[in-house]
Amino acid sequence: MNATGLIVDPLVLAQALIRCPSVTPADGGAQAVLAGTLERLGFSVTSLPFGDAGRQTPNLFARIGTSHPHLCFAGHTDVVPPGEATWQAPPFDGVLQDGVLYGRGACDMKGAIAAFVAAAATHLSARANPGSAGSISLLITGDEEGPALDGTVRVLDWMAAHGHTPDFCLVGEPTNPTELGQVIKIGRRGSLNAHIVVPGVQGHVAYPQVADNPVHRLLALLAELTTIPLDRGTAFFEPSSLQVTSIDVGNKEPNVIPAQAEAQLNIRFNDQHTGASLTTMLRGAMSRHAPTGRIDIRVSGEAFRTEPGPEVQALGDAIEIHTGRRPRLDTGGGTSDARFIARHCAVAEFGLVGESMHKADENVPVRDLALLSAIYLNMLDRIMAGAPA
Amino acid sequence: MNATGLIVDPLVLAQALIRCPSVTPADGGAQAVLAGTLERLGFSVTSLPFGDAGRQTPNLFARIGTSHPHLCFAGHTDVVPPGEATWQAPPFDGVLQDGVLYGRGACDMKGAIAAFVAAAATHLSARANPGSAGSISLLITGDEEGPALDGTVRVLDWMAAHGHTPDFCLVGEPTNPTELGQVIKIGRRGSLNAHIVVPGVQGHVAYPQVADNPVHRLLALLAELTTIPLDRGTAFFEPSSLQVTSIDVGNKEPNVIPAQAEAQLNIRFNDQHTGASLTTMLRGAMSRHAPTGRIDIRVSGEAFRTEPGPEVQALGDAIEIHTGRRPRLDTGGGTSDARFIARHCAVAEFGLVGESMHKADENVPVRDLALLSAIYLNMLDRIMAGAPA
Repeated sequence: MNATGLIVDPLVLAQALIRCPSVTPADGGAQAVLAGTLERLGFSVTSLPFGDAGRQTPNLFARIGTSHPHLCFAGHTDVVPPGEATWQAPPFDGVLQDGVLYGRGACDMKGAIAAFVAAAATHLSARANPGSAGSISLLITGDEEGPALDGTVRVLDWMAAHGHTPDFCLVGEPTNPTELGQVIKIGRRGSLNAHIVVPGVQGHVAYPQVADNPVHRLLALLAELTTIPLDRGTAFFEPSSLQVTSIDVGNKEPNVIPAQAEAQLNIRFNDQHTGASLTTMLRGAMSRHAPTGRIDIRVSGEAFRTEPGPEVQALGDAIEIHTGRRPRLDTGGGTSDARFIARHCAVAEFGLVGESMHKADENVPVRDLALLSAIYLNMLDRIMAGAPA
Repeated sequence: MNATGLIVDPLVLAQALIRCPSVTPADGGAQAVLAGTLERLGFSVTSLPFGDAGRQTPNLFARIGTSHPHLCFAGHTDVVPPGEATWQAPPFDGVLQDGVLYGRGACDMKGAIAAFVAAAATHLSARANPGSAGSISLLITGDEEGPALDGTVRVLDWMAAHGHTPDFCLVGEPTNPTELGQVIKIGRRGSLNAHIVVPGVQGHVAYPQVADNPVHRLLALLAELTTIPLDRGTAFFEPSSLQVTSIDVGNKEPNVIPAQAEAQLNIRFNDQHTGASLTTMLRGAMSRHAPTGRIDIRVSGEAFRTEPGPEVQALGDAIEIHTGRRPRLDTGGGTSDARFIARHCAVAEFGLVGESMHKADENVPVRDLALLSAIYLNMLDRIMAGAPA
């Protein structure tokens, strides 16, 4: 590494990123803004577009230094759409009002990216000989909020192929429910979606004996699946949860037993299960209640958990120093790209407060940007302090 | 009564009626054809259109004689639409081919009306002094296949108000599953439709604890309703049957717990229940599983049964003489206008074979028209034999 003496204001960078309208799959210039800043700080930046020509996913990998420990910050520049609700300020203007920065991506997660880049800049500029003490990288995708097929998962393969697999990866997702410092995520539940189609034999309701009501087969199947708990949870995981999200028959004739019934369900599962074990369970229930039915199962992520090591300890200490609270180690909530990273290295997630994410008037208090940046810096200093001088 | 010496060919009258395209609510001239024939036979015919001006339901009441016993034949000249399937011959041409008469209404129930009119003509012409022996009437509506609001139910009130309530009513619905003579219906199950709306609290599937999944409430409710049998049936009735005909959520987002779920169900119930008792049962289940939900219940007919008396005995004897089989006394199948008639007098149903009803290529073998007419005639002779000469 070569110290540049440059510092980065996380507010200015967060505003610049929010002003790039990067609703998945658009990039809106966000990665170029980031790449320019990282290059000025001395990072080697590689643009890694993946996917079919014409609709490629923008990704970048940036690294400074070559030695260990190698800490990687993972995040995404894409954002979800502004939605149909009205915003008080335009969602891509990055308006600052009464100490709060408003805009789509403010907390999920352009703000966290800016906080980390600012922390890295300060860490690097404060080193006597920064080139020799460990290395810092960023894995940034433009497709975390979308299908996530040509994003983080492909960059990780490229990193592995080019000797860039890190020792530890920190994902900047907004992990805190209401106040900064509450939660470090050290794992996530897995997620499985299933679409069920149950055929029957259509008929008149007056003659059920010569029909076969697919709604009743589906009811028995789903009643069984929703009545028996999947587990009781573990020390680090909530109980697994199966939610039937839709049932659709579309029969407008009150006197007709319909020919088909469909359902959609999602399972969020802990590490007592795997996508494969749940697939077996679901197919078994189908064979009992609807043997002629069809079930399409898509496992979008296995449950995973990182055994908390020195890096999570360092992050927890940095949080406690700056917020006065010891963060809870947790595995709740939705999925994130951490599920892909866990296959390569230890991973934890810590970022801003997620209260306003995916909503109108998404925002981050400027003091939280500064506080998160200070926490990241303290963590970097602690982790790199273990590196050879 | 005054004997005319006229006879009626049931085939010719059935063809004439089929050639009137009387898809509910249209009449297509059918009732005029019938009225003309009945007037020639000496019946007093009263046209009884009911309902709002401009879309009135055509009905007619015809009676010959004033004394008792008063036997009424009830039926409908309206038919269901031809449907989307292709017919081998045009549905309103009344084509005769290989001894089979094809056309919409052939068995449900223009054929039975023609058979009864032919039987009445022969019965009347064979009497020494027909004017003095009982009376015969016809209650014909043009809205049995539709909402049935301004049809049989209104004519019955008119009949009651004018001293025309019969001693016994025979409904000419196609009661026989596959061969003429199998089934006399002496009652029908009741029918109840319910539409259920269960509200919940929308949320992300990853956080079910802060949502309230209306699909799960609906599942528990419907699983309970479909698991516990309503009864085991009685000597004359099949077990009551509850069929869930549709469940609709319409949620396209696999990660979202929806805000509302709806279901539609039908109950066909025997005389162990009433619309009121089932309403209480359904509201009780709602209050346990979905107290904030809404259930709209419509009872379209109560269960009813006629205690088999001398007229049903006479009908059964007539059937046995002509077919060699003793008909089963039954209460199965859908609803018919008999549910309205049962409030006024004893009622039974016997008509043609219903296999082709409501389908493409609806038909009746000509021999069945003749056989049914012979059965009706034999029944008339038996019932009127008990009358004073």
